[in-house]
Amino acid sequence: MDIKKYMQEIGLAARAASRLMASADSNKKNAALQHIASALLREKTALLAANQLDLTAARANGLDEAMLDRLSISEKSIQGMAEGLRQIAKLDDPIGEMSDFKYRPSGIQIGKMRVPLGVIGIIYEARPNVTIDAAGLCIKSGNAAILRGGSEAMHCNQALAKLVKEGLAAAGLPSSAVQVIETSDRAAVGELITMKDYVDVIVPRGGKGLIERISNEARIPVIKHLDGNCHVYIDDEADFDKAMRILENSKTQRLGTCNTAESLLIARAVAASMLPKLADMLSQHGIEIRGCKETCALVKQAKTASEEDYYTEYLAAIISCKVVSGLDEAIVHINQHSSQHTEAIVTENYSKARRFLREVDSSSVMVNASTRFADGFEYGLGAEIGISTDKLHARGPVGLEGLTSLKYIVLGDGQVRA
Amino acid sequence: MDIKKYMQEIGLAARAASRLMASADSNKKNAALQHIASALLREKTALLAANQLDLTAARANGLDEAMLDRLSISEKSIQGMAEGLRQIAKLDDPIGEMSDFKYRPSGIQIGKMRVPLGVIGIIYEARPNVTIDAAGLCIKSGNAAILRGGSEAMHCNQALAKLVKEGLAAAGLPSSAVQVIETSDRAAVGELITMKDYVDVIVPRGGKGLIERISNEARIPVIKHLDGNCHVYIDDEADFDKAMRILENSKTQRLGTCNTAESLLIARAVAASMLPKLADMLSQHGIEIRGCKETCALVKQAKTASEEDYYTEYLAAIISCKVVSGLDEAIVHINQHSSQHTEAIVTENYSKARRFLREVDSSSVMVNASTRFADGFEYGLGAEIGISTDKLHARGPVGLEGLTSLKYIVLGDGQVRA
Repeated sequence: MDIKKYMQEIGLAARAASRLMASADSNKKNAALQHIASALLREKTALLAANQLDLTAARANGLDEAMLDRLSISEKSIQGMAEGLRQIAKLDDPIGEMSDFKYRPSGIQIGKMRVPLGVIGIIYEARPNVTIDAAGLCIKSGNAAILRGGSEAMHCNQALAKLVKEGLAAAGLPSSAVQVIETSDRAAVGELITMKDYVDVIVPRGGKGLIERISNEARIPVIKHLDGNCHVYIDDEADFDKAMRILENSKTQRLGTCNTAESLLIARAVAASMLPKLADMLSQHGIEIRGCKETCALVKQAKTASEEDYYTEYLAAIISCKVVSGLDEAIVHINQHSSQHTEAIVTENYSKARRFLREVDSSSVMVNASTRFADGFEYGLGAEIGISTDKLHARGPVGLEGLTSLKYIVLGDGQVRA
Repeated sequence: MDIKKYMQEIGLAARAASRLMASADSNKKNAALQHIASALLREKTALLAANQLDLTAARANGLDEAMLDRLSISEKSIQGMAEGLRQIAKLDDPIGEMSDFKYRPSGIQIGKMRVPLGVIGIIYEARPNVTIDAAGLCIKSGNAAILRGGSEAMHCNQALAKLVKEGLAAAGLPSSAVQVIETSDRAAVGELITMKDYVDVIVPRGGKGLIERISNEARIPVIKHLDGNCHVYIDDEADFDKAMRILENSKTQRLGTCNTAESLLIARAVAASMLPKLADMLSQHGIEIRGCKETCALVKQAKTASEEDYYTEYLAAIISCKVVSGLDEAIVHINQHSSQHTEAIVTENYSKARRFLREVDSSSVMVNASTRFADGFEYGLGAEIGISTDKLHARGPVGLEGLTSLKYIVLGDGQVRA
């Protein structure tokens, strides 16, 4: 198989489909999503059978339980995929939105129109549900998508792709608006992330290793999310009950998510009174505390943190902790160590809250709320293709709007430039 | 000189300065701009002397007249730089703007805050005025800047840099918020475009060759503008007088700008009646016409266009021309051949205008207006650091807002995620 030629054909078809998708009306796009949702439910037996082929091969290849878990689909998860598509269908169509029209002294009227990015390449691990999520978001946002899932999910992804194409065609949209790469050859990824003429943006979804590798090799812009080393800063004017509740939720609700707090900062003035109680709460949840000298003096069960700890996204039952002099040191520490994902301050002081919001350079900055809220659904985006820790284009949770751009529209009556 | 070490020091200082600039209040930033403007006028003799050193060396090195012209400054151009800074000072400060605050069912309130990108690396040719333009835009937008101008302008750029630093310091802002690279070693550019930890975005300004080279080698996002192969499409329902006026202005007002029309499309139904007159107007301006067979049959003076012509940004007294069947063919031709900069339709038909606006995939799309309006000042941005033909982040003329990002702000009262 000539991978380069194969990928060029996919790219060419995607580019052609993207033109039609860009001007497709909302009803057709929503109809496609509904058709796909119905097809998923109708074909669940076939989908489960395809998934079994993947699971059998994966077990034979010795995949671990966590990977097998992500690879598996069930009747319930198929229902979840269908429900997700129906939710996307209910969202407002962002494409074609026009805004900010103003007359200029020359007499022209200038505004903006929201448009799709064009062709989105999505690279992800062996998780079949991402195939449907990504297809749904790209269809609604008027983009064409080229999907490359982990090769372990190949049978299931092909079965899903067939239903997506069927749904697009039933709605009168080009079936090549969503293409799933059919080869497990890794050279296909290399082509995908360098086909500048055919792909407008790459969205890698998966572990940090995958995302770093793709970012380094891509010659196309990447919307990426590397890691979430999120901080909770408990100010000397914090309400203790709020501090307790927010820290508990931020750290212990789920250990493996990117918006989980990985580091606790606390103002010296309240460290002696609050930190032992906070630490006991963490210990009751089985969280290991790695702290600075002052932390270790106040908290018996604390271990000594290295400088490296303060840079670490544990994704595990560990938290780093540091006693700081106050807001200034907290902001400097966060801007130095965080991954610019999400940080929260707990305080009742208006001016300090305001400074924290302005000066902390992260994609989400919060006052008196759990870092766990950093999420597309919680933010009201309706869906999420990822969380961007970059500053250009999309920052923070990326929903439909992150898959769009704005072009300038000029309306005139024959005006020319003087 | 250890270029790597030198650049790392500049990067570190820029990153530190960017933190202070991000929270600097508007009055200080405006005061810095005013101080620099005053210093430019006060030190004009010294600036002209520094520029003379550059010009003497440039002449000795055999630079052509066009380059010498761009390299020269005059009392008038110094006044222009000062005036430009004062205009930037008058613009609203985009930084810290908060918008779209909404309550969510969880009780949190979520909105966005506009923030600087951080550190901007700007690479440009030997044009001293760009040093001041770029410094002004970066200061106002709360960013730190690392500037690398063409080495032929080294003396003048250093003299300007001194005044910029003085103005920053006088306003109580970090003088390292704007740094001009002091070596002409090209390795410095190689470092600048790969120092991911210190630089957030690269803005290359100059010829297509420079921009392509930097885009290919950069490991940092680039806001770029490659070329402007702009189209005017004259529809079969065009008003002839508007068509004549818009084509004349779009093509002939200035030949060398990126928003100049390089290609004319005309609907077959009006080609016989309109094209000869339009062609005569172009010929009177000394514009060579390269057309399709139908064009050549209708226009005596036309030469035959190659397929390559339709992809070409001439920046010269040449225009390509094609007779098309109508709107559909025009849109397909434009989306195939244009550089996605600016395209205009001339028509009185509402539905066709609406389709052209929606379906043409360029950064500016116009109805009955000259392509020459695609410009930051004409659009009311107040200033312009470049025109982006990319789709991610900024698209079209890039002003202050293009040098900013939005972060999410969450305001709570102790909410945690259920």
